[in-house]
Amino acid sequence: MSDEFRNLHAAGRPLLLPNVWDYAGGAALARAGFAAIGTTSLGVAAAAGRADAAGKTRHETIALAKALVRLPVHVTVDIEGGFSTVPEDVAALVAELAGLGVAGVNLEDGRPAGALAPLHDHAEVLRAVKASAPGVFLNARIDTYWLAQGQPVLEETLRRVRAYANAGADGVFVPGIAADGDIRAVLDHVPLPLNVLYLPGRTDIKRLGDLGVHRISTGSLLFREALRAAVALALDIAGEDGGAYPVPSYDDVQDLIGG
Amino acid sequence: MSDEFRNLHAAGRPLLLPNVWDYAGGAALARAGFAAIGTTSLGVAAAAGRADAAGKTRHETIALAKALVRLPVHVTVDIEGGFSTVPEDVAALVAELAGLGVAGVNLEDGRPAGALAPLHDHAEVLRAVKASAPGVFLNARIDTYWLAQGQPVLEETLRRVRAYANAGADGVFVPGIAADGDIRAVLDHVPLPLNVLYLPGRTDIKRLGDLGVHRISTGSLLFREALRAAVALALDIAGEDGGAYPVPSYDDVQDLIGG
Repeated sequence: MSDEFRNLHAAGRPLLLPNVWDYAGGAALARAGFAAIGTTSLGVAAAAGRADAAGKTRHETIALAKALVRLPVHVTVDIEGGFSTVPEDVAALVAELAGLGVAGVNLEDGRPAGALAPLHDHAEVLRAVKASAPGVFLNARIDTYWLAQGQPVLEETLRRVRAYANAGADGVFVPGIAADGDIRAVLDHVPLPLNVLYLPGRTDIKRLGDLGVHRISTGSLLFREALRAAVALALDIAGEDGGAYPVPSYDDVQDLIGG
Repeated sequence: MSDEFRNLHAAGRPLLLPNVWDYAGGAALARAGFAAIGTTSLGVAAAAGRADAAGKTRHETIALAKALVRLPVHVTVDIEGGFSTVPEDVAALVAELAGLGVAGVNLEDGRPAGALAPLHDHAEVLRAVKASAPGVFLNARIDTYWLAQGQPVLEETLRRVRAYANAGADGVFVPGIAADGDIRAVLDHVPLPLNVLYLPGRTDIKRLGDLGVHRISTGSLLFREALRAAVALALDIAGEDGGAYPVPSYDDVQDLIGG
């Protein structure tokens, strides 16, 4: 694994990772001084006119990775659920990305239908990925806070954190986790870097640093803000009120693509 | 040709055409009420990590067109110089786009090295395109204001307007033209719809309508604004001054991609 990328995950001084969906965004953020760039599967999918988290953008994901690795920054790629439930397929994909020079991947346990993958199945995928591409920072995304409604979320999260750590994950990403107690519980449970999602108006980066969080990702936010800005400007030029056009939500974007 | 799209080009009430570089932007603008959507070759190229106007994005241009035609709007595609100087090649490309359902194309006479195509060569390309795809609104882009520095620009523009009209163009697009006298001269020269580029802080849409302009395109502006907004938000989140990050110019974007 690229020690340099791993070393950017310091407790107390979290890596702020902006996520992009095209080469231009990555190039602009690299030049603006960000040392590492992630990708956003919502952005990649919506840009291509496909639904996110549906396993439909393997080709676009690889093409974007191929372009971004030309930049003088670490690149970590959101590969949704790996575009397959077969461990060997996902392992081959990550080996291909490693060959391109990516520093890391995010692999999520949410499934297209909105359910969580069975824990042991997903752990097998992580294990196969780690074996085939040991140098890639394997960030195991745990979608419990989005998908495990009605279950004891923290308990299920900790169960998965442990299992994915044992399977060889280099870090865990728990989007939606926000309460101090929950964050502390995850950090205390395994000695892996913890990645959380930036939540506009709610996230306090300093507080997350004090808690010991290692990485803060912007997820689909920059993509949605870019979409807002483009439409708002077009409306302004057309003499309408672009300022009233809001940042679309994740669901708004999925609806836009489906509709 | 789609009469419905042609009829959107009314003297006195110009069609405001927003240009996009991905499906999501097109979908959002369609839902926001725009009746027609163009594409921006700078955006398409920069998103893919390639230089604009270099003839490198034939594949991406077709893929984007294929996605955008699903939307309930007219779609007109920027095909740069046609990705070939061979009339039959360009004619085949436009026929393929016509088969997908696009309403129009922009075909420019600027060449990768920054020179203008010889007038008669470009007219032959236009003639071949019109013969192979008569139903497509063929917008002949004339790059004299950008590339004919040192020459008598208006004179060369009028010469090209006339030649392209004779070759079968359905409209002419003269980016950079701004002076009332120049615009009037083009409108008086041929009875074709005139398309001009929206210039932030300079373009007065009402005035252009009064002059008789038929279409106003945003060119690469929405793409550049989206890029600005994404980087600015990332900088704000990182505790820096995103508000100071300007809209990158066309040259800034080309430099970003090349660098």
